[in-house]
Amino acid sequence: MILEYDGTNFYGWQRQSHSRSVQGEIEKVLSKILKTEVTIDGAGRTDAGVHAFGQVATFGADLPMGLKRLRYVMNNFLPKDIRVVELSFEEDEFHARYSAIGKTYVYKVINGEEANVFTTNYRYHYPYKIEDEKIKEAIALLEGTHDFSSFMASGSSAQNPIRTIHNIEYIRQGDLIDIVFTGDGFLYKMVRLLTAFLLEIGQGRIPISVVEKLLKNPTRQYTSKVAPAMGLYLKAVYYENDK
Amino acid sequence: MILEYDGTNFYGWQRQSHSRSVQGEIEKVLSKILKTEVTIDGAGRTDAGVHAFGQVATFGADLPMGLKRLRYVMNNFLPKDIRVVELSFEEDEFHARYSAIGKTYVYKVINGEEANVFTTNYRYHYPYKIEDEKIKEAIALLEGTHDFSSFMASGSSAQNPIRTIHNIEYIRQGDLIDIVFTGDGFLYKMVRLLTAFLLEIGQGRIPISVVEKLLKNPTRQYTSKVAPAMGLYLKAVYYENDK
Repeated sequence: MILEYDGTNFYGWQRQSHSRSVQGEIEKVLSKILKTEVTIDGAGRTDAGVHAFGQVATFGADLPMGLKRLRYVMNNFLPKDIRVVELSFEEDEFHARYSAIGKTYVYKVINGEEANVFTTNYRYHYPYKIEDEKIKEAIALLEGTHDFSSFMASGSSAQNPIRTIHNIEYIRQGDLIDIVFTGDGFLYKMVRLLTAFLLEIGQGRIPISVVEKLLKNPTRQYTSKVAPAMGLYLKAVYYENDK
Repeated sequence: MILEYDGTNFYGWQRQSHSRSVQGEIEKVLSKILKTEVTIDGAGRTDAGVHAFGQVATFGADLPMGLKRLRYVMNNFLPKDIRVVELSFEEDEFHARYSAIGKTYVYKVINGEEANVFTTNYRYHYPYKIEDEKIKEAIALLEGTHDFSSFMASGSSAQNPIRTIHNIEYIRQGDLIDIVFTGDGFLYKMVRLLTAFLLEIGQGRIPISVVEKLLKNPTRQYTSKVAPAMGLYLKAVYYENDK
């Protein structure tokens, strides 16, 4: 499944017994349609408030109808803040999370002096003056394969902190900024930590020279700020056999 | 005051004793700041779900601080879905509603086959194929001074149904359509009735020839559909002395 959801009113992706989650809502609908208990696996376990327009999830089940019909029925039963964009059959070995070889996240900012009521849940309002050139300089240093421990939130299970960021695109249209991160994988809260850090670089509060230091000698000294969840979108997940 | 609000979580503009209204929220905040009961008048009493980025409201009070400071304090206390864009002093005779000589409303549509979770509360999803040229033809006939009884919802207090529409702009960008209505005033639900009608014209469900009939011999025969509130935005209110 390729999924789109507005994360505003969910306590995140992951199923929870007493709170509304994206996984929980989809499992409920699928189980009802297929008349058997279905559990699904998501490629990215997005946090509360985080959105997606290219989340991928897998499940195994016998289908009493075609994929086109199933998608139609699912979208009919799902709440308005979740939508199935695409359904396809995959090999048994295929798993949304373990088979993924890369992901793209977008972080959206509104950089005007004043907030905007229509982007409250969809863009991070950052009112300070930013120098785009400084951010682009920092981006050039961050791209590549590094130990990203400086950009990993505590509370994440121990994991290898080496990641490859293939590309960070910085797109400004007036007050609206989209930062597009593509990499082989991201550590816990890494995109939000990177975004908060880049914005402070742009603002001149952190000197560019810090970037290389953080990659060589990891420390959370300069990366205590986490950009809020509402600006983050899971855009795409990549697999070995993608056409 | 010039006001911006996301109407999604309000039971409309008008103060209500047990429901959340835009007027009620602003009056509560103003009364707290000014330490006296303040009531405000809005230029347009928008319905539940209708948005605004140029609503105008007036009130009379002695101010213990400057306008810049008052705006800052108001925005600090107001909920995130209401924002004061501008404050200015006006003559005693000035009244947001009675002094208005014109208004602009925008109606926003998403005209793709599939809904989009991010526009659920902000654009009307109209999945049918539309011919833009037909809509533009109908618009040319609707502009001007007419008896718009065919586009007035019942339940409105008896009023003179003659209105002048100065201009209707039809703007399409891919799947996104904005229809911008500027006139001396609009009858109850007139913009939403006009929008639903125009979309049916575009779809070919109502022939163009009907437009002139409706303006000459008013009937609700072709205008029983009301486009939903979530697509409507009050964009601007005009006054005699606008610069």
